[in-house]
Amino acid sequence: MSKEVQDKAQNTAQEKDWYEDLVLRSGLAEHSGVKGCMIIKPYGFAIWENMKSVLDARFKATGHVNASFPLFIPKSLLSREASHVEGFAKECAVVTHYRLINDPEGNGVIVDPTAKLAEELIVRPTSETIIWNTYKRWIQSYRDLPILINQWANVVRWEMRTRLFLRTAEFHWQEGHTAHATAQEAIAEARLMLDEYAAFMENYMAIPVIKGYKTESERFAGADDTYTCEGLMKDGKALQMGTSHFLGQNFAKAFDVKFLSKEGVEDFAWATSWGVSTRLMGALIMAHADENGLIIPPKLAPTQVVIVPLINKQTKERQDDFDAAIDKVKSELQGLSFLYDDDDTKRSGFKFAEYELRGIPLRITVGLRDIDNGVVEIARRDTMQKMSVPFDNLGETVRNLLTDIQNNLYNTALKFREENTTKADTFDEFKEVLNTKGGFIYAHWDGTKETEAAIKEQTKATTRCIPMDNPMEEGKCIYSGKPSKQRILFAKAY
Amino acid sequence: MSKEVQDKAQNTAQEKDWYEDLVLRSGLAEHSGVKGCMIIKPYGFAIWENMKSVLDARFKATGHVNASFPLFIPKSLLSREASHVEGFAKECAVVTHYRLINDPEGNGVIVDPTAKLAEELIVRPTSETIIWNTYKRWIQSYRDLPILINQWANVVRWEMRTRLFLRTAEFHWQEGHTAHATAQEAIAEARLMLDEYAAFMENYMAIPVIKGYKTESERFAGADDTYTCEGLMKDGKALQMGTSHFLGQNFAKAFDVKFLSKEGVEDFAWATSWGVSTRLMGALIMAHADENGLIIPPKLAPTQVVIVPLINKQTKERQDDFDAAIDKVKSELQGLSFLYDDDDTKRSGFKFAEYELRGIPLRITVGLRDIDNGVVEIARRDTMQKMSVPFDNLGETVRNLLTDIQNNLYNTALKFREENTTKADTFDEFKEVLNTKGGFIYAHWDGTKETEAAIKEQTKATTRCIPMDNPMEEGKCIYSGKPSKQRILFAKAY
Repeated sequence: MSKEVQDKAQNTAQEKDWYEDLVLRSGLAEHSGVKGCMIIKPYGFAIWENMKSVLDARFKATGHVNASFPLFIPKSLLSREASHVEGFAKECAVVTHYRLINDPEGNGVIVDPTAKLAEELIVRPTSETIIWNTYKRWIQSYRDLPILINQWANVVRWEMRTRLFLRTAEFHWQEGHTAHATAQEAIAEARLMLDEYAAFMENYMAIPVIKGYKTESERFAGADDTYTCEGLMKDGKALQMGTSHFLGQNFAKAFDVKFLSKEGVEDFAWATSWGVSTRLMGALIMAHADENGLIIPPKLAPTQVVIVPLINKQTKERQDDFDAAIDKVKSELQGLSFLYDDDDTKRSGFKFAEYELRGIPLRITVGLRDIDNGVVEIARRDTMQKMSVPFDNLGETVRNLLTDIQNNLYNTALKFREENTTKADTFDEFKEVLNTKGGFIYAHWDGTKETEAAIKEQTKATTRCIPMDNPMEEGKCIYSGKPSKQRILFAKAY
Repeated sequence: MSKEVQDKAQNTAQEKDWYEDLVLRSGLAEHSGVKGCMIIKPYGFAIWENMKSVLDARFKATGHVNASFPLFIPKSLLSREASHVEGFAKECAVVTHYRLINDPEGNGVIVDPTAKLAEELIVRPTSETIIWNTYKRWIQSYRDLPILINQWANVVRWEMRTRLFLRTAEFHWQEGHTAHATAQEAIAEARLMLDEYAAFMENYMAIPVIKGYKTESERFAGADDTYTCEGLMKDGKALQMGTSHFLGQNFAKAFDVKFLSKEGVEDFAWATSWGVSTRLMGALIMAHADENGLIIPPKLAPTQVVIVPLINKQTKERQDDFDAAIDKVKSELQGLSFLYDDDDTKRSGFKFAEYELRGIPLRITVGLRDIDNGVVEIARRDTMQKMSVPFDNLGETVRNLLTDIQNNLYNTALKFREENTTKADTFDEFKEVLNTKGGFIYAHWDGTKETEAAIKEQTKATTRCIPMDNPMEEGKCIYSGKPSKQRILFAKAY
């Protein structure tokens, strides 16, 4: 590794805070030494796999199919849609050569200057351009529509300041790209996928979200409209957790994708795109973690229950009784994902702390005295509450507890959001809230880019969205004092 | 797209042969216009997803966990292991810049010359270097071993001559990377994964494979030993379908990965890596396809059964009877993946040809006359045989047929391989076989690189492997006449 790359890795490590510290200590991910690229460790990846699996099933249930498009996009293709390339140009990783050689002057391995590409290739920051260049070949008639395709992929957006999961140069995501015969149908698709995202975030991740429209200046580069799910993290900052875009005919026009309608009229196809990424891992951590570590919602936990036997001299003397009790516990947990940890090189207290750190929803402790009493001890990770539970119907008890934890996490997050949502009527109030409690702020805005930019510059808070179920209310813009018809959602955000 | 990129895409298209034509017509994949990068279409991707799912479950069942490492490898890291970088240098895609700008001279979007990376990044051709650079942080003691990690990823090896699935610049694969305390354990791991690959290829892909050792010159760059699964394709060429490598301590030494043994002795860790890729899609096509198109083995087919109703005036008059029959068929197929195609804009004959082209294992045709007779017509894709089958126990009949097709595909491929495997005792015989029937050739070889290279140069046939269960047999090298203890496997290969 070059000195420079090492130094950068070092600096990043020094900047770590409670969040990064937690991600590192709980074994979810770490920095790789390659600027902005992280290593997702097995425990982190197992959670991401669970997320993928639920989302993928929902995409398929709503009629989508998976496919795979190239990692590289020729520069000329990326440049075809003007606002799109403008949005991504600043963060493009560019492949310019295709060979290494041994330096004839003895400086080791160098890039072969004769192996220069005629046209540079961009490592995809998102795939609208390469996909619509393909759809041009696939779409001629209304019979070819809709096209409902999703891709699970890695993408690269060069970032100067990175943060594990939340902002990385390379990240994993899914990107849906659909083509439709009418604007109406495309809008319905974009809304449907936003609803799917929100349902996933609330029902699986246990994070309540505000669904809304992005303002024009916060829209995806190339979109006519961007819908978003905004979550509130425990540090009072907002996180954009997923977006769905109505792209109008912008990409169809840029790539000349026309179809003949049922009525024989030629028109450009209508598009959507929508994506969620490994950033959701960051949300999962930041929405639930406490001073003891992660709390993983049971529906996404790779290990839902850990069984820790309390092994000592007595248990060894009555090994058969003990083994029978353990077997009974295991058989009650069939169908759940559980881990039996009988590693006798580690103390129980150490194990307890470790599994708490990793956010395993339930811990079952099995000791000889409890066995004789026909019970086991169960500890909930969310409330840290311990309880003595009979062997009888243990499986049902555990299942009920897991459901309860899932619900409790959601309700706790919802309560936190409610407590950290404020209405501000003046700019002073607005700033005061930001400086004290943070969180979501509903405030009137005059609808202009200028006001939006000024508020952002002076407070670092941004417009998160215009909520979809927003009540109409007469008011005055907190910044300009001009009339406004509704409050919109502001916050400092990741 | 630049003129040059377009011309290249054009040339590639013109070179297409029966194989490429079949891949295109059956909707598995197509060229992207980005040199060497393909688009895997939904049908092709669904088959690949089924393969992944079976393999992933086997990896997990054998104790492996998934993780994710960076797409980019700093040039200095890739260069750390000398033979490794030598093996991959010629085909590296190199990222040199991280920003695009509008050309101040008005030539559109250009690469920002001021955004040059201090050190070039290589798009990973394989991940041993970045992973062993990470394992250095993870391994201190024998307690940290073994590490059994797999990664599903895209990799890039710049190729001048590409072929859909079989040889592409970007491809999808899995790469296992394990670290062990002893050589013995690492070798056992590499052998185990080769066995897992072979079992998958035979039991799911229905392709018999020869397991063997690669000769020194055919080994993976950086390996002490490479094990391979070699399959025979229908055109008489061999295909290396998967490899597993015993890497010795080469990467541990290059990245200084030492551990303290139970006995308190410091030693370098022992490594394996193993991978299969989307190339397996090429194998699946080339091993089974016939003049009517693909034949997908039932265990991997996204659609195992297609139901085609024969709709006409009469069926519409007796709609209730007809619907009841269709419902009965569907209910018998519960648990299988089936498709009901009642699109009345297409003729049945057209549908039949389409589903044959796509290799759906079974087709069920439901007509009114058959319903009255209490039967349906079933057509097998492998034998093209049609049969009249009673409604009663239809589900069981279909399941048995699918099993039979799976077995028949394997047995047919095995018979083909046996018929196309020849022993050659002289170089003339060897060349004669290559020029006439092709296929696998067992021949004596003196074990030298020089002979291997000469045979390759004069015949284009390469040493495929030294089979693992090879019988010992005294003989003379077909090329040099020097003594040899066993025949090894030769073939022309992809």
